[in-house]
Amino acid sequence: MTLTPVLARLDDGLDDALARLMALLRIPSISTDPAYKGDCDAAADWLVQDLESIGFDASKRATPGHPMVVAHGGEGGPHLLFYGHYDVQPVDPLELWDADPFAPAIEDTPKGKVIRGRGTSDDKGQLMTFVEAMRAWVAEHGALPCRITIFLEGEEESGSPSLVPFMKENAEELKADFAMICDTTMFDGKVPAITTQLRGLLAEELVLTGPSRDLHSGMYGGLARNPISVLAKILADLHDENGRITLDGFYDGVPELPDEIRAQWQALAFDHARFLGDVGLSVPAGEVDRTPLEKLWSRPTAEVNGIWGGYTGAGFKTVLPSKASAKISFRLVGEQDPEAIHAAFVRHVEDRLPDDVTAEFPNGHGAGASRMPTDDPAFEAARQALSDEWGMEAAFIGSGGSIPIAGHFQQVLGMNSMLIGFGRDDDQIHSPNEKYDLESFHKGMRSWARILAALAR
Amino acid sequence: MTLTPVLARLDDGLDDALARLMALLRIPSISTDPAYKGDCDAAADWLVQDLESIGFDASKRATPGHPMVVAHGGEGGPHLLFYGHYDVQPVDPLELWDADPFAPAIEDTPKGKVIRGRGTSDDKGQLMTFVEAMRAWVAEHGALPCRITIFLEGEEESGSPSLVPFMKENAEELKADFAMICDTTMFDGKVPAITTQLRGLLAEELVLTGPSRDLHSGMYGGLARNPISVLAKILADLHDENGRITLDGFYDGVPELPDEIRAQWQALAFDHARFLGDVGLSVPAGEVDRTPLEKLWSRPTAEVNGIWGGYTGAGFKTVLPSKASAKISFRLVGEQDPEAIHAAFVRHVEDRLPDDVTAEFPNGHGAGASRMPTDDPAFEAARQALSDEWGMEAAFIGSGGSIPIAGHFQQVLGMNSMLIGFGRDDDQIHSPNEKYDLESFHKGMRSWARILAALAR
Repeated sequence: MTLTPVLARLDDGLDDALARLMALLRIPSISTDPAYKGDCDAAADWLVQDLESIGFDASKRATPGHPMVVAHGGEGGPHLLFYGHYDVQPVDPLELWDADPFAPAIEDTPKGKVIRGRGTSDDKGQLMTFVEAMRAWVAEHGALPCRITIFLEGEEESGSPSLVPFMKENAEELKADFAMICDTTMFDGKVPAITTQLRGLLAEELVLTGPSRDLHSGMYGGLARNPISVLAKILADLHDENGRITLDGFYDGVPELPDEIRAQWQALAFDHARFLGDVGLSVPAGEVDRTPLEKLWSRPTAEVNGIWGGYTGAGFKTVLPSKASAKISFRLVGEQDPEAIHAAFVRHVEDRLPDDVTAEFPNGHGAGASRMPTDDPAFEAARQALSDEWGMEAAFIGSGGSIPIAGHFQQVLGMNSMLIGFGRDDDQIHSPNEKYDLESFHKGMRSWARILAALAR
Repeated sequence: MTLTPVLARLDDGLDDALARLMALLRIPSISTDPAYKGDCDAAADWLVQDLESIGFDASKRATPGHPMVVAHGGEGGPHLLFYGHYDVQPVDPLELWDADPFAPAIEDTPKGKVIRGRGTSDDKGQLMTFVEAMRAWVAEHGALPCRITIFLEGEEESGSPSLVPFMKENAEELKADFAMICDTTMFDGKVPAITTQLRGLLAEELVLTGPSRDLHSGMYGGLARNPISVLAKILADLHDENGRITLDGFYDGVPELPDEIRAQWQALAFDHARFLGDVGLSVPAGEVDRTPLEKLWSRPTAEVNGIWGGYTGAGFKTVLPSKASAKISFRLVGEQDPEAIHAAFVRHVEDRLPDDVTAEFPNGHGAGASRMPTDDPAFEAARQALSDEWGMEAAFIGSGGSIPIAGHFQQVLGMNSMLIGFGRDDDQIHSPNEKYDLESFHKGMRSWARILAALAR
């Protein structure tokens, strides 16, 4: 089964592939907001139908949350499990979008054509790259080049509560030789990459309560405890003046970067001034004694993702609020233990609670970091396939993002992952005006066709 | 012109007076939110019509914001200017109200009957006490007991931007012997009071901007500056460990309490445990070396009234936000200068801004504190009238709240104010489920009838 006609078919069928992607993008499958439950379901249905049309044995599988999509096809060769997620991030602040997030369109930009809309890069555009590669393969050769399982979830953007239970219940069905995860970026927008080092994530929500109701600050101010001030102190104390995180034992299990990885990363000549300049910044923040790429890929972080309390509307309302809340996430590396860090965070908060203020910690969840065995020859084969498609040597890189699924595949199914994606740093995932480069979509499909050929060989 | 039949008329006409108040309360005149502009206008129209029905020469007067209502009536005796405001606070969080804030109703509670709804205590219920007293006086005697001007604004809850310009333009028309301001509380719910010491207010809004757009915290966290953390540090540093405010020169012009006032306040036997216990607190916060009543009435404060930034919806969104904002208010006393403190606040913020973070200060406004000349015999006459109505000696008290109008009357019109109101500390003004005691409304009307008689004599 030769590769060349498959690649030609992908080139010829680009418009049809885009039309299918647009149909999927138009479904507002925001998993974190219960109002979009029906849309998540509709996205799963759409995928089942599309995979069946390629010849997969596909089904929607119920969970306590949003459904999974599982599909099987092909025979012989290695067994590859392809993972993606059909849910997307919320779209607020909606007023910062230049167009309806769920009315995707192709746009000309100074850097080339892009597909604009929520989920284009994270993750519907990415997951359709491998689906289209498989469709072309089947259309050309009548069958997939090896045994393939597709496993798509609808809760990746809301903490994946159903994922591990589902994997445990269906371990026999899901276990493959490798997991292929499409949720990552290229290096610097030109160099294709396989992500082999991923940070973990501990997400915390913190709710402080002081007075039993909102008070008039003129009548109670200066005497009643203000929970916003307490929250400010707790968050201000999360980092010391050198950018280090102050939680007790936080750096336990954080490895120093091996010399050879450090050398490789130095060779990548990461341009942090451009990386920051693209988003209106100029000076690296964070730990003062670490290089920018170390901070992004191999160092743990603590970031406040959201904060709210009191009156936040137009004008003034001199309220002394009953509650103040924040969402905080920790990116974890090496052997850092999410449970130990959760406990240290609780202690950090409780040590700073004055009389009359109580703290709750709802909705927290966490997963540790992962590192892949790059000495397995399959990694080299995939890297060569990527290099061939893009005309330059593909890199093994780290990622600042957390893709807990890779850790779960290792821990629950004993399966390593290849993280290969075609997102770009400027895709504005999780932000208004998310986009996916048309080149990423097109060469992404072609890349997967090449990787399938390389691994099936 | 005798008082007794006026009081009897007020007793007999209570139901009619309540029906009028309910009609005014049903108008959602939220001044701070442009969506309710028409309702503010409607409240002004309602008042003009009602005052005309009593015989006042009343008119709605345009301003760049919400209109003023000005009415003149009566002849001879002292000229009294009655001030109130027809605008109300916003109602969020709406879900914490037990009923529609703008469907007012009488409710039985363990402490007696109350009128429940937004604006019942602040300030529509209060302003209707003097309107009803005047209505009864005119109905009984055919005329008011002295020359009266009524001056009602619609921007008190949104910083009163049109007030001073309007007062300056109409100084001749508005200047009277005394201003009567109805926007205050009784002492501890039983003892009637004239408020003679008021804190000023400096309201600040602070908007910090870091990255030019919201970022993915996994992709940028640890390298890009997070404005929420910067805001947390700025707010945490507003107070030192002894509860003192750290702004440079903040305590300049703050007087120590005179010994005789300190003695009077000690005699009031303020029960801070009950005051705090009513709102779920137990321990006085704020300056460690001051008594609770000093903190509430005579010490300056800094309180964060609202904070927001990043993702605040359900679930998690690992965003590193572009912006973080807060609303902060300072209560001012003595000779503290709002402009100097604004400048010190700006320096406090700018001293804590790291590279790449900028600060804006929109919508700030301020007014200094006031103290009334309690040695003027009119104060004693009014105090006696209040004591007669309530059957216990009325007090001269301070107020933690800021009623900038009193300062404006002094500075712009050279006119002192008597601040007499019948609100209670548990009225939940600026909070969900605002109420005004039926007793406050009823005895409030009767109190004004007595005060009119006492001052007109």
